[in-house]
Amino acid sequence: MAQPWALHPDRALPAEPGQRAIAREVYAATADLPVISMHGHIDVGAIRRNDPFGDPAELFIIPDHYLVRMLVSQGYRNSDLGVRPLEPNAPFEADHRLIWRRFAENWKLFRGTPTRYWIEHELVEIFGVTEEPSAETADAIYDQLTATLAKPQFRIRELFDRFNIEVLSTTDAPDADLADHRALAAEGWGDRVIPTFRPDALFYPHRSGWRGAIAALSARSSVDVTDYRSFLEAVQERRFAFVAAGGLATDHGHRTANTTPLDAADAERIFQQALTRPVDAATGEAFAGNMLFESARMSTEDGLVMQLHPGVGRDHADAVFQAYGPDNGFDIPEAVEFTRSLAPLLNAFGLDPRFRLILFTIDETVYSRELAPIAGVYPSVKLGAPWWFLDSADGMARFRELTTETAGFYNTSGFVDDTRAFASIPARHDLARRVDAGYLAKLVAEHRLTIDEATETAVDLAYNLPKASYARRPQQ
Amino acid sequence: MAQPWALHPDRALPAEPGQRAIAREVYAATADLPVISMHGHIDVGAIRRNDPFGDPAELFIIPDHYLVRMLVSQGYRNSDLGVRPLEPNAPFEADHRLIWRRFAENWKLFRGTPTRYWIEHELVEIFGVTEEPSAETADAIYDQLTATLAKPQFRIRELFDRFNIEVLSTTDAPDADLADHRALAAEGWGDRVIPTFRPDALFYPHRSGWRGAIAALSARSSVDVTDYRSFLEAVQERRFAFVAAGGLATDHGHRTANTTPLDAADAERIFQQALTRPVDAATGEAFAGNMLFESARMSTEDGLVMQLHPGVGRDHADAVFQAYGPDNGFDIPEAVEFTRSLAPLLNAFGLDPRFRLILFTIDETVYSRELAPIAGVYPSVKLGAPWWFLDSADGMARFRELTTETAGFYNTSGFVDDTRAFASIPARHDLARRVDAGYLAKLVAEHRLTIDEATETAVDLAYNLPKASYARRPQQ
Amino acid sequence: MAQPWALHPDRALPAEPGQRAIAREVYAATADLPVISMHGHIDVGAIRRNDPFGDPAELFIIPDHYLVRMLVSQGYRNSDLGVRPLEPNAPFEADHRLIWRRFAENWKLFRGTPTRYWIEHELVEIFGVTEEPSAETADAIYDQLTATLAKPQFRIRELFDRFNIEVLSTTDAPDADLADHRALAAEGWGDRVIPTFRPDALFYPHRSGWRGAIAALSARSSVDVTDYRSFLEAVQERRFAFVAAGGLATDHGHRTANTTPLDAADAERIFQQALTRPVDAATGEAFAGNMLFESARMSTEDGLVMQLHPGVGRDHADAVFQAYGPDNGFDIPEAVEFTRSLAPLLNAFGLDPRFRLILFTIDETVYSRELAPIAGVYPSVKLGAPWWFLDSADGMARFRELTTETAGFYNTSGFVDDTRAFASIPARHDLARRVDAGYLAKLVAEHRLTIDEATETAVDLAYNLPKASYARRPQQ
Repeated sequence: MAQPWALHPDRALPAEPGQRAIAREVYAATADLPVISMHGHIDVGAIRRNDPFGDPAELFIIPDHYLVRMLVSQGYRNSDLGVRPLEPNAPFEADHRLIWRRFAENWKLFRGTPTRYWIEHELVEIFGVTEEPSAETADAIYDQLTATLAKPQFRIRELFDRFNIEVLSTTDAPDADLADHRALAAEGWGDRVIPTFRPDALFYPHRSGWRGAIAALSARSSVDVTDYRSFLEAVQERRFAFVAAGGLATDHGHRTANTTPLDAADAERIFQQALTRPVDAATGEAFAGNMLFESARMSTEDGLVMQLHPGVGRDHADAVFQAYGPDNGFDIPEAVEFTRSLAPLLNAFGLDPRFRLILFTIDETVYSRELAPIAGVYPSVKLGAPWWFLDSADGMARFRELTTETAGFYNTSGFVDDTRAFASIPARHDLARRVDAGYLAKLVAEHRLTIDEATETAVDLAYNLPKASYARRPQQ
Repeated sequence: MAQPWALHPDRALPAEPGQRAIAREVYAATADLPVISMHGHIDVGAIRRNDPFGDPAELFIIPDHYLVRMLVSQGYRNSDLGVRPLEPNAPFEADHRLIWRRFAENWKLFRGTPTRYWIEHELVEIFGVTEEPSAETADAIYDQLTATLAKPQFRIRELFDRFNIEVLSTTDAPDADLADHRALAAEGWGDRVIPTFRPDALFYPHRSGWRGAIAALSARSSVDVTDYRSFLEAVQERRFAFVAAGGLATDHGHRTANTTPLDAADAERIFQQALTRPVDAATGEAFAGNMLFESARMSTEDGLVMQLHPGVGRDHADAVFQAYGPDNGFDIPEAVEFTRSLAPLLNAFGLDPRFRLILFTIDETVYSRELAPIAGVYPSVKLGAPWWFLDSADGMARFRELTTETAGFYNTSGFVDDTRAFASIPARHDLARRVDAGYLAKLVAEHRLTIDEATETAVDLAYNLPKASYARRPQQ
Repeated sequence: MAQPWALHPDRALPAEPGQRAIAREVYAATADLPVISMHGHIDVGAIRRNDPFGDPAELFIIPDHYLVRMLVSQGYRNSDLGVRPLEPNAPFEADHRLIWRRFAENWKLFRGTPTRYWIEHELVEIFGVTEEPSAETADAIYDQLTATLAKPQFRIRELFDRFNIEVLSTTDAPDADLADHRALAAEGWGDRVIPTFRPDALFYPHRSGWRGAIAALSARSSVDVTDYRSFLEAVQERRFAFVAAGGLATDHGHRTANTTPLDAADAERIFQQALTRPVDAATGEAFAGNMLFESARMSTEDGLVMQLHPGVGRDHADAVFQAYGPDNGFDIPEAVEFTRSLAPLLNAFGLDPRFRLILFTIDETVYSRELAPIAGVYPSVKLGAPWWFLDSADGMARFRELTTETAGFYNTSGFVDDTRAFASIPARHDLARRVDAGYLAKLVAEHRLTIDEATETAVDLAYNLPKASYARRPQQ
């Protein structure tokens, strides 16, 4: 029998001994820093209720679209992995032990992926698993995890402390009542769990669900939303409600980075049309671009930091979308353009000291060509961390390599995770700290930076920059 | 005098000693595996007849567009290097010793290129040359090679054994009679040399030669091709003939990845027009996109694996095309788009367990943005190996770095060469095995993978994956 | 107190000891070679007059758009850094010591950037500064620099010798009188300082200033420029004047790489319209594309090497452009296309032995996809060095990695700086030599090249190739 499964203390640090020694020293300065998690998708209700995590399939597999998509790529259907179809009577695998076995048997598919790195970290470091997943070990690990997850110290708020999370931002609909956030605040958790305003559903009038989102906005706000003007008022009111509940940022997932404003009359006409009859995609996209512009304007007033991540072709497989709904692994990136698309917004607000914009991409070709030059000159702009498919060891290394020489370190936001899986938060932050340590170690080893500079920079990237990038504006 | 020219056993492995030691161990597990060569351009007739290779210029220079293009880039004309103009009376260099000298004198142009790596491997390892090409050594090497090439053990089928080629796929026109493949099968070589169905000439009705290709299809098949419907029937019949002759795949070199189907009536109208009068480029491209969709449909029926490689601007220099015809070094890549282009095809067939699609690109920007996400979720899709300009040490390393974290290793096809030069096959497969060993060694050295996992993965990439990716479907 | 600030002799060489040892040897062969500086922006008048450099803010900060943009990205206005607004009465910081302090206090922003590398080199190596810039050291360094800059051996022509500059090319307007160049020639400096013909202002008829540029051209030439034909004559006459003054090249900064020629009648119509009334942007861009074609044609006649660098979105922030004019840090790259855009030009002149074209980009995605394949076959084309944002340690390394395997070393121009800051010339060339040595050392360490080949190649890249790429044609 092999020795017990364990995490190597030098994992994901550079292989070359000289750089590794430097990287170890740099990493050590950040390893125990608190976690600033400003862009997550954890359910605030689960935190307030301090829900247990359920069984291993419920924790690790069914809700993790990274993991499900990899198994789907080798022939499983989503439903084989416990993903519930929308159609009430459609079959899906309900045997969670069997689902876990399917994952364990296919462990090799994840070689070289961040999923492998994260889950290895979670199983070993958090849950004390000592054997690698495989057909042979699947049942024993399942039983061990089940027993562990039943313990009180493995509930979400206990892990919150263990993970050293200083602040975690959730992502919330514009009509969220924010009651859970208020309840948490009443318990003294108001600075630890804060909401983020995510209004995408309101901004795409050609998509199904838009009228419902408008109705919900109208119901939640004090404004009767009947036209474009009242719509803007209601959006602004909800933003202020998020500010009051501790919110620091908005989040915008758009098809493109278009930010061209519309004449108020045109926006009104589109709005009215969408209330009663279909709007074509081009018109809807134009309205969405206009709303990015308006969102930036509102940010100059209420101080919410604007986060933008364009370029994802959502729900590429119609059949999967019809069967299971969105977010089931079939989102595929597209080429994205920032330089011209952001020009209207940046010309209006880019030099305004009240405005802050954090840009994310999953199209790496814009790192050195567009994003680093934009963030390297506009005072309002910072580059967000590598995101989604790029939140990985090699992906993060490329981000630094392709942006630092033009934008430096101090026009980036520092590490921002994008987590749906709560238990993966420490692994993700730890990996980012290791990769940044490795990049900085290379600069030190090549005599382009001193070790003291590298260490200070690493601490900034892990802690100070994410805090400062989302901090409330002083005079607000 | 320097010591004799030799291949270093550690060539193309990582320079850092720790990674090199690991890479050596990983590479050793693959070095002697049989060669699976599923995407080549070797003439099947030459194999059947067991042709000799001719003189050194005929073997190494005149038919090698990589090599010719590099010498052209420094001022030689194609005809200076023995490439025969189409015009019967046009002059071209017929002195093959002189052509060889031109190459040898310019050996330094190839520094850092895969051509250098391959030819060095061939000269040293296969032909026993002990001096580097130069003005001084050109004649002696020419004489030695000439003598060696005359020996019976240097004929193609003897080298087939020496190269340890388990299976080699040729590329064949849709009207190929497949007689050579049948003759080889009769000699017991039926599993070693198989055809690939390459119907591009039939799919672009605006290109010169289309009517001739249709006529040849009609003549070869039992179908009288007079309209779109009979055209599809004839194509399907020919595909079945390829299946019967051992074929496992089709191959499609398109300008774009467009796969939008046409109404049958529209396709019929274009087809009829093209039979009698010119079709414009946009119409022709639309027809080609439709035919990719139809080819995918046929693949679900006959089981042929579909290979697609879009994005090459062919014959960029009109004068060279006029003088020498296609494939003379002036093909230049263009930006290519997969996410939207493949949506029609993947929505129709992407989740069908009978369908298999292998995607190739020479636009690296789509590796992490589009190809890895597509292959990382669609069960029908695998990523082909880095191809053409990217079939190189650094190019292959970038492929792994940019695709593995999203698609893993097991959504790639393993190594697939694209060889016109038979003698370069061992060098190409050897280089791929070394580069993959180096990438895997990095993961091991960074404690992201164990050495056992790395070794198993290397064997899969070199042998098991290419075999499985093109294997005949079980229930077919 | 720490030990004095110093440059490490191995800076920017590979960290791994084996590669570093090789890189040291390769670099040593190039470290003392003369500087060939073929693409600079130094004011020829300053050279002729042998101007002093002014104070530290005037030398290092105010005119350096790299440095200013980084400070602007963190909240300074251009005017805070001494950049003078166009509006005569607008305020700007006139206290140069204070400007220097602002820079010194923000030294950390430059970590990992080429600005940091260059300025560190300049301060230590050229000016003998022994402390790193900081709030504490700012004043002392300012005083030391002020004293040093006052010494006669720190004037530009003395530094010209100290920097070992063999030839420096300036960039000059088409109506430049070239008097300073002639005066320098009369002093025996005719081979050391030569002009470059930069006609962009004449080629974009929709831009403000075009009529003025045409008038200036008409005034400077012997031709009365009243129509398109006389315009071409005047351009050609001025090009010959540049040839007579020692010029070797033209330089073209275009929005795109479009080179489609216009009918003479269409060009004439646009020209006439632009003389009297506005021309829209599309028409203006078409004229500019035509003028690239015409410039290539002229190059075949007068032998000037054509340099083209498309893809910069100029003056992204309107407010900064209105306040300060062009070139103030807000130029942002855009995606660029070469394959189709250059087809008209390359089909007309690409195989002409009299024509030479050097291509630059700041969109790295075209390196392996388009530029290396184009330069790797067209005899007239060479790839220029990584430029602007990419003239950096990692940027130059990526250039070699992404172009060498397809284009080799000998289809590149060797190192070409693009310097506005005279004192940074040695640092830039030194960094390029180190990075190329590192890339070559990797090839040697991986047994893909011998040390002798690497050393010869390094010397070619640093000296012989830039000389040859711009050399006057023999029979001219």
